[in-house]
Amino acid sequence: MARIALDAMGGDHAPVETVAGAVASGVDVVLVGDEAQLAPLVGDSGLPIVHAEDVIDMADDPAKALREKRRSSIAVAAQLVADGEVDGMVSAGSTGAVMAASAMIIGRLEGVSRPAIAAVIPAGERGKIVLDAGANPDVTTKHLVQFAIMGSALAETRLGIVEPTVGLLNIGHEPGKGRDQERAAHDALEKAPINFIGNVEGYEIVADQPDVIVTDGFTGNVALKTSEATSRFVMAAIKHELGEVLTERPDLAELFAPRLAGLGEKLHPESHGGASLLGVKGVVTIAHGSSSRAVMANVLRMTVAEAERHLLDRIRAGLQA
Amino acid sequence: MARIALDAMGGDHAPVETVAGAVASGVDVVLVGDEAQLAPLVGDSGLPIVHAEDVIDMADDPAKALREKRRSSIAVAAQLVADGEVDGMVSAGSTGAVMAASAMIIGRLEGVSRPAIAAVIPAGERGKIVLDAGANPDVTTKHLVQFAIMGSALAETRLGIVEPTVGLLNIGHEPGKGRDQERAAHDALEKAPINFIGNVEGYEIVADQPDVIVTDGFTGNVALKTSEATSRFVMAAIKHELGEVLTERPDLAELFAPRLAGLGEKLHPESHGGASLLGVKGVVTIAHGSSSRAVMANVLRMTVAEAERHLLDRIRAGLQA
Repeated sequence: MARIALDAMGGDHAPVETVAGAVASGVDVVLVGDEAQLAPLVGDSGLPIVHAEDVIDMADDPAKALREKRRSSIAVAAQLVADGEVDGMVSAGSTGAVMAASAMIIGRLEGVSRPAIAAVIPAGERGKIVLDAGANPDVTTKHLVQFAIMGSALAETRLGIVEPTVGLLNIGHEPGKGRDQERAAHDALEKAPINFIGNVEGYEIVADQPDVIVTDGFTGNVALKTSEATSRFVMAAIKHELGEVLTERPDLAELFAPRLAGLGEKLHPESHGGASLLGVKGVVTIAHGSSSRAVMANVLRMTVAEAERHLLDRIRAGLQA
Repeated sequence: MARIALDAMGGDHAPVETVAGAVASGVDVVLVGDEAQLAPLVGDSGLPIVHAEDVIDMADDPAKALREKRRSSIAVAAQLVADGEVDGMVSAGSTGAVMAASAMIIGRLEGVSRPAIAAVIPAGERGKIVLDAGANPDVTTKHLVQFAIMGSALAETRLGIVEPTVGLLNIGHEPGKGRDQERAAHDALEKAPINFIGNVEGYEIVADQPDVIVTDGFTGNVALKTSEATSRFVMAAIKHELGEVLTERPDLAELFAPRLAGLGEKLHPESHGGASLLGVKGVVTIAHGSSSRAVMANVLRMTVAEAERHLLDRIRAGLQA
C-alpha cells in the first residue's frame, strides 16, 4: 500500500479534524506537525508522527514563509516525499505554500515545464477535471499540451475513466475560435497523445463531456470560482423559497431536509477530494481549507488511490509519447 | 419618446413573438422585415413597418452575410439608426451580424476604440453588468478603461444605479494579482472617472457588489457561460429531487410550481432584457434568440429607457472626462 504524508496542521479545523480524518481513512498516513498537539489525538490508531515545530499561516507570503519556516509542517511533509519516505502528501493549508514546497523541495517531474493545479468538480456521472485552476496565469502552447496529458492521467487514476475525453476551453467550438493561444493549442492538442475532442465553451464545465477541460490558470481560476459561486447562489435562492414554504408547512421539513443536504454535498466541490498539484515528483493533493474529518478521509483515500494507480508513471509515459 | 427599430425577423420565434412583443411593449417601435409576413401580425396596433426582403440566418457568416444581404432586416434596422430615424435597435438574431452591422453601418461613438457587449445578469438586488461578454477576446488597457466607462453608463441607465461600483475581474483581490494585462488595467482604472473598487474574483459575479465587472471578451464569455450553465445545472438537480418528492406527494405540486417558475425567471438572464452593444452611435440591444413576446416587450422597454436616459451622452461624457 502506498503511504501518504498529511500536513496535520493545515486547514481551518486542524489538527482535530485532520487527525480524525487520517484515523478514519484506513490509509497508511504519516502525520506531520507539532507532536505535543498531535499525540493526544492519535489515540490507539498507532499513526506515526513526524514532528514539525512551525506552521505556515494562510496570511503568510508563501515563498517567504517556506524559506523562513524550514521546519513548517508543509516543508517537512514535502521533504518526506522528496526523500521517498512517502508517495505523496495532502495539505488543507496554504495553496501557495504547497505549490512553493512542491517546486522547491519535491521538484518537477522530468520534462514538465510548469506544474498545474487540477480541480475536480461535480459534473456528469463521474466528475470532471479542470486545469490549470490558477497556478499559471500565463501559458504557452507547450504548457497547455502538458496540462492535457497530466489531466488525462488524473482522470484515469482519480475518476477511473479509460481514454478520458479532453476539451480546450474556448469561446466557440470551431477550430479558428479564440485568441492566438487557443488557435495554436487546438492544433497542438490534435497531435498530442490524448483523446482530444476539440474546443468547448463555458457551458461545458457542467456537461457530461469532456472529462478534462484544459485552459490557462487565469481563465480556469475565474471559471471555477464563477461556477462554485453560482452553484451556492442558486442553492441559497432555493433554500430561501423552501424556507418560506416550510414556515407555512413545518410538517414538510422532514421530507426535504435530507434531500437538500444530499444535493449540497453532491454539488459542492470540497467534498470531492480536493485539487491535485500535477507535474511534481509525488502525488500532491490540496484539500479545501474547510475540510471536515469525513472530507479529509476521502481526500486521503483518493490520494493513495492515485499513487497506487501510478499517476506519476502515467504522466511520464504521456509526456514521452 | 424615443423610437426603436426592431428586427422583426430575428430570433427563434420570429416574427410572431417579435411583433407581439412590440405590440405589447407600448414602445414607439418601427418593425423591420418582410412586409407580407408582418402586416397580418400588426393588427390594429398601427405599428409602422419598414420592408426588408432578406434575413440573415444564424448559420451565415455574419460579416459576409451582411455584405451580401444588403436588404437584410438587421442591415435595414441599422440603417434607420444611422439615418437618425430611430434612437436604437433591438435584434434577437445573429449576435455577430448585429455587431458587424453596428460597426459597418451605425459606426462607433467618437473616441471609442472597440465596441463591447455588456451582459446584464441577475445578481444582488438590482442586477449586474459584465463586459466584455465576447466581442473582444484580446484587449489593451485602454479598451478595458473604456469598457469600464461604458459599463458604468449602462448601469446608470439600465439598472438605475447612481455612481455604480466597478471591479476588474482577476484571480485575487490584491493589486499585483493577475497577468500584465490586469496589473496595468488596475492602475489605469484607479485614475479613470468611475467608482472603481479594485480587483474582484470569479465568486463576485453573483455577489451584491460590484455593479459592473470589467474583463476581456475571452474571460467574460467563459465566465458568463459557466455561470449560466451552472445555474441551469443546479436548477435541474433541484427539479429532479423535487420531482421525486412530488411523485410520492402529488398534493404538494401546487405549493411548489409557482415558486419554481418564479425562481427560474429570476435566475435566467434571458428574462432580464438582453445584452447591450456599447460604443456605437445608437442604443443597440441583442435579445436572447429564444425570447418570447413577454421578454421582447421587456427588452424594448429597457432599450427605449436607455435611450431616454441618454446612454450615449453619458458614455461620451465619461470618455471625455
